[in-house]
Amino acid sequence: MRIILDAMGGDNAPGEIIKGAAEALAELGPELTVVAVGDEARVREAAAAAGLAEQPGRFEIVHAAEVIEMCDEPARAIRRKKGSSLVVGLQMLAAGEGDAFVSAGSTGALHVGASLIVRSLKGVKRPALATIIPGGKKPYLLMDCGANVECRPQMLEAFGVMGSIYMSRVQGVAEPSVALVNNGAEESKGTPLYREAHQLLKANPNIRFIGNVEPRDVPAGAADVVVCDGFTGNVILKLTEGLAKSLLGMIKEVFLASFATKLAYLLVKGGIAGLKKKMDSEEYGGAPLLGAAKPVIKAHGSSKARGIKNAIRQAKLCVESGMTDTMAAALAGLAPRG
Amino acid sequence: MRIILDAMGGDNAPGEIIKGAAEALAELGPELTVVAVGDEARVREAAAAAGLAEQPGRFEIVHAAEVIEMCDEPARAIRRKKGSSLVVGLQMLAAGEGDAFVSAGSTGALHVGASLIVRSLKGVKRPALATIIPGGKKPYLLMDCGANVECRPQMLEAFGVMGSIYMSRVQGVAEPSVALVNNGAEESKGTPLYREAHQLLKANPNIRFIGNVEPRDVPAGAADVVVCDGFTGNVILKLTEGLAKSLLGMIKEVFLASFATKLAYLLVKGGIAGLKKKMDSEEYGGAPLLGAAKPVIKAHGSSKARGIKNAIRQAKLCVESGMTDTMAAALAGLAPRG
Repeated sequence: MRIILDAMGGDNAPGEIIKGAAEALAELGPELTVVAVGDEARVREAAAAAGLAEQPGRFEIVHAAEVIEMCDEPARAIRRKKGSSLVVGLQMLAAGEGDAFVSAGSTGALHVGASLIVRSLKGVKRPALATIIPGGKKPYLLMDCGANVECRPQMLEAFGVMGSIYMSRVQGVAEPSVALVNNGAEESKGTPLYREAHQLLKANPNIRFIGNVEPRDVPAGAADVVVCDGFTGNVILKLTEGLAKSLLGMIKEVFLASFATKLAYLLVKGGIAGLKKKMDSEEYGGAPLLGAAKPVIKAHGSSKARGIKNAIRQAKLCVESGMTDTMAAALAGLAPRG
Repeated sequence: MRIILDAMGGDNAPGEIIKGAAEALAELGPELTVVAVGDEARVREAAAAAGLAEQPGRFEIVHAAEVIEMCDEPARAIRRKKGSSLVVGLQMLAAGEGDAFVSAGSTGALHVGASLIVRSLKGVKRPALATIIPGGKKPYLLMDCGANVECRPQMLEAFGVMGSIYMSRVQGVAEPSVALVNNGAEESKGTPLYREAHQLLKANPNIRFIGNVEPRDVPAGAADVVVCDGFTGNVILKLTEGLAKSLLGMIKEVFLASFATKLAYLLVKGGIAGLKKKMDSEEYGGAPLLGAAKPVIKAHGSSKARGIKNAIRQAKLCVESGMTDTMAAALAGLAPRG
């Protein structure tokens, strides 16, 4: 299996990206090939630092002279920077020179690039960004997390179908529950988009739809798959990050208040570290762009080696499980969407 | 000044409601009159328990035989339960028999009732629910919190104007900053609703608009007034509550882990309690329904005496500050909204 890796994307590229590749190659079995795309000299240097040798069928390097920066406007960057690691990598995926693509680069550019170069499954207008978010009882999959800020009801139905397949096939959750974000439990709640999506999800025989979920119950893990439009999903994802940071910051202040509280910190340090680890998105690797014709994984922009390794693991699971084919079949069964 | 109080609304009615009235009367000055509306016998009993005597011009009781329950469908309840404490109280407000109305009852019924009975200011289709949310650096006003799930751009502009007046007049914030929730800082971000609202807010000379705020930065207190549609506002409000509860629960587990961590808890107990108090919505009283022709305050459904007292204090400030007249004048200056 060949995983194409954007060696130049993300805050810690290429060093941590290549280190993540080395860890993945060491841990994920001999049938894995990582193809790193990026500035040849810099990638080679990073590989040397990570103790990773070029070897066909294990670790290969493909040169790409350009890099898409976070500040680049996504659509323009995809059109103009044809020689970027992101565009070259996606073109290799589209051409069958690899089985999946992993990048910690610009989410917007990856989304536009996946749509235009890899294309979407039939029935999907544009792929959706799905993120595993750490929750109280269990992690849950939120989608769309911001790729499609404007949605139609049929798109939300497709999110439910794709999210359900991802959670069962890739994350190993048996019969995942699917819920629709809404401002109340009743079917009549929400905007016309949400009312219509509720009916479509309810009528779909291939998912275990448990109805609306109120935002209050989302963090506790009320459902395995939480469906919403990309504007709302972006609010949930980013507010969760911001609030966790804000609250953990306030707790830190409590511990810094006096000598006694600093002493207290020593006693709970392990537990707090465990809590931080539980809330850490790197544990879950990356966010798949579900609905792309081939697996495309967005790793967090601040990913270090561990986050990249987990994203590669996730890409491998997507390929092994036949996720994309299963989705294509399930989506073909939906009503045509205009 | 006469504050009309729904004695039967909320989880702890009428006992805690009347106790809150007693505290307000003791603390908020001799010019305050509280008119409690509800089942006469039960209100009288609660007053006796709170050591509160009926006295014209201080504490008066108006009988209302019915109660609107949380499970009642709002619009139907307002139409059918004409003898409910909520409808009787709002009718008194509309008739000029009081200066403001406070209720801890059903948000939906209060919203429908305020719209139909008290009416809205010119230029406002229906009032919006504005809530003060505790934040990292400072609390912020979020509106709309769920009263209007479908909005037009002009409504979001009016939210900015009304929220700004509320924060300066009632909460004493000098030149409050106003921001629009969005999935990016650029003006081009978001749905058509948000792109158009951005331009209207930016062009409005009466507010200090600081642009888009990303959901990640909302909890830290990036702006004094955070504007969004009611669907999104409901997500922000309820997710904040759910996540704070979820995180504080996880932290509690850390402290319960062993004898040593329980000991640590004793050392930081005061600080954690302070943090909980900071995150406690009762500190801020109630949520005003801004845009109603007279001040209407929604107290939290689970309010105890302190929450009711703070909501009465808030109602008093709304009246004293001439908030409603200021809003009427500011809204009259806006472009007509259809």
